Amino acid sequence: MIQIFVTGGTFDKEYNFVTGKLFFQDSNLPEMLDRGRCTLDLNVRTLMMVDSLELTDLDRENIVNNCRGVATNQILITHGTDTMQQTAEYIAKADIQGKTIVLTGAMIPYAFGSSSDGFFNLGSALAFVQSLPPGVYVAMNGRYFSWDGVKKNRSTGYFEPV
Amino acid sequence: MIQIFVTGGTFDKEYNFVTGKLFFQDSNLPEMLDRGRCTLDLNVRTLMMVDSLELTDLDRENIVNNCRGVATNQILITHGTDTMQQTAEYIAKADIQGKTIVLTGAMIPYAFGSSSDGFFNLGSALAFVQSLPPGVYVAMNGRYFSWDGVKKNRSTGYFEPV
Amino acid sequence: MIQIFVTGGTFDKEYNFVTGKLFFQDSNLPEMLDRGRCTLDLNVRTLMMVDSLELTDLDRENIVNNCRGVATNQILITHGTDTMQQTAEYIAKADIQGKTIVLTGAMIPYAFGSSSDGFFNLGSALAFVQSLPPGVYVAMNGRYFSWDGVKKNRSTGYFEPV
Amino acid sequence: MIQIFVTGGTFDKEYNFVTGKLFFQDSNLPEMLDRGRCTLDLNVRTLMMVDSLELTDLDRENIVNNCRGVATNQILITHGTDTMQQTAEYIAKADIQGKTIVLTGAMIPYAFGSSSDGFFNLGSALAFVQSLPPGVYVAMNGRYFSWDGVKKNRSTGYFEPV
Repeated sequence: MIQIFVTGGTFDKEYNFVTGKLFFQDSNLPEMLDRGRCTLDLNVRTLMMVDSLELTDLDRENIVNNCRGVATNQILITHGTDTMQQTAEYIAKADIQGKTIVLTGAMIPYAFGSSSDGFFNLGSALAFVQSLPPGVYVAMNGRYFSWDGVKKNRSTGYFEPV
Repeated sequence: MIQIFVTGGTFDKEYNFVTGKLFFQDSNLPEMLDRGRCTLDLNVRTLMMVDSLELTDLDRENIVNNCRGVATNQILITHGTDTMQQTAEYIAKADIQGKTIVLTGAMIPYAFGSSSDGFFNLGSALAFVQSLPPGVYVAMNGRYFSWDGVKKNRSTGYFEPV
Repeated sequence: MIQIFVTGGTFDKEYNFVTGKLFFQDSNLPEMLDRGRCTLDLNVRTLMMVDSLELTDLDRENIVNNCRGVATNQILITHGTDTMQQTAEYIAKADIQGKTIVLTGAMIPYAFGSSSDGFFNLGSALAFVQSLPPGVYVAMNGRYFSWDGVKKNRSTGYFEPV
Repeated sequence: MIQIFVTGGTFDKEYNFVTGKLFFQDSNLPEMLDRGRCTLDLNVRTLMMVDSLELTDLDRENIVNNCRGVATNQILITHGTDTMQQTAEYIAKADIQGKTIVLTGAMIPYAFGSSSDGFFNLGSALAFVQSLPPGVYVAMNGRYFSWDGVKKNRSTGYFEPV
């Protein structure tokens, strides 16, 4: 079984037509998994719905506790890209044994339809969580990076090895 | 470097508005990789553009020769779903050593926009080709299957273990 | 009140992933009107769901009877493009008095998402049916044509004045 | 010939993946007209690219001058919805004779793909500008409203007659 934890991020941002601002509603994950015709045994749980710039260490502790507590070794976390590396580092330092934990997200909201990278990223992250050895990883741009070998380039939006 | 071989299939079907029929034009792969913000070192080559029901053993021999000839160990093949298992078997029996070969496709053409599974499948297949040990695999429905452990259920369109 | 009669055509074609063929299911009209945030007083009724090349004069007589029988003077008909002009002519010759009847359709199925002209055509046809004087019209390519002043160019797919 | 003046608004908002904010880039009009397979004789000119809450009377005077100066009687203006009625009123009070001027916009950006009302609104506004008598109108929700007979309901986002 694969556990998916939803934490928000661009991935799940929606457009509020009354205010003209982006906001969070329900996660798009169930619709995306349906559209991907995904037949994996999955459990989806929303832990929070926030912009990753607003994630606190208390939130990260919550994520760690959930990763530790769940009875599976394959965990996928959807997360905003701005602090994805920090959260990956926080989880890695909690030293959870024997689990493959993959963080992914999107640069363009899934709600933006044909221009979003989110659906592609979800496919690759689900594959990585099934096939990589235990550890904490970031999956973006079709690639995977170890938690201590990646940073987001803030001007291009691409994740790069360090 | 990852080699992508395009062979056609539903993945790349387009709508011809003059005839009202589906047909093949150029592959959607480059646009999809761009949209996925993919930064992998990739080479894309179209070997053929056919419905997989029309694939002959001569075509399969061509695919095998290309897999053998290319100087990389990571190969992704986009393929129609109807005979994806047969082509995987044909390649496996050619006994190419040391290469991870992943076949993927789509149940709904990428050109159909928001209902297509193709973009998700591409993401997962690219991830599997980077992380699975040498062998021949089918990547569909978010999962991977060994070439000798899968069949397509023709009434539901899902790939199932055998 | 505006009456919409659905007759099928490319507008409403869907992709059957089991057979790989295009087919008709339910009309996309309700979803399209919702997405267009349309607040017009509308009634939608499906008369048939066929490719317009298969429309018989019996079907056209059925359409005429429905146009005559309905208690409104504004009627929109969604229709395949191949024989849209013939059906317009058939209706015109039935000489229904005092009604504005507009036929529209699509060159690319609405199910194809971002490449379809259907949503644009629906918007223009709904506007024309509210604002044109009684008569029978074809609304395609952002324009309206009197039933006896239009033909479809079969090689380009555009409607042209004659 | 139909003149289209672009002024910005939600219609043309794009997502900036570096800042995570909505912004204006080039207008989507040319792509939309192409997708709508529109064969009307059109001229598109961008007058400004602003959120309509930021439109000043100087901007509105600029719009009026352009409406007056252009050598056609059919003018379509794309505009933010928040002050669409105010701009329509401003134009109406300038008392331009013999011209049909239609303002339209969108509640959801065209860049959001399948959930946007923009493409539908463009189709209906183009049809109204061809078929309504001289005057100043707002075209939204599939309907047209005289400039002095409409207001936007800010909690629902629908335009309503007054």
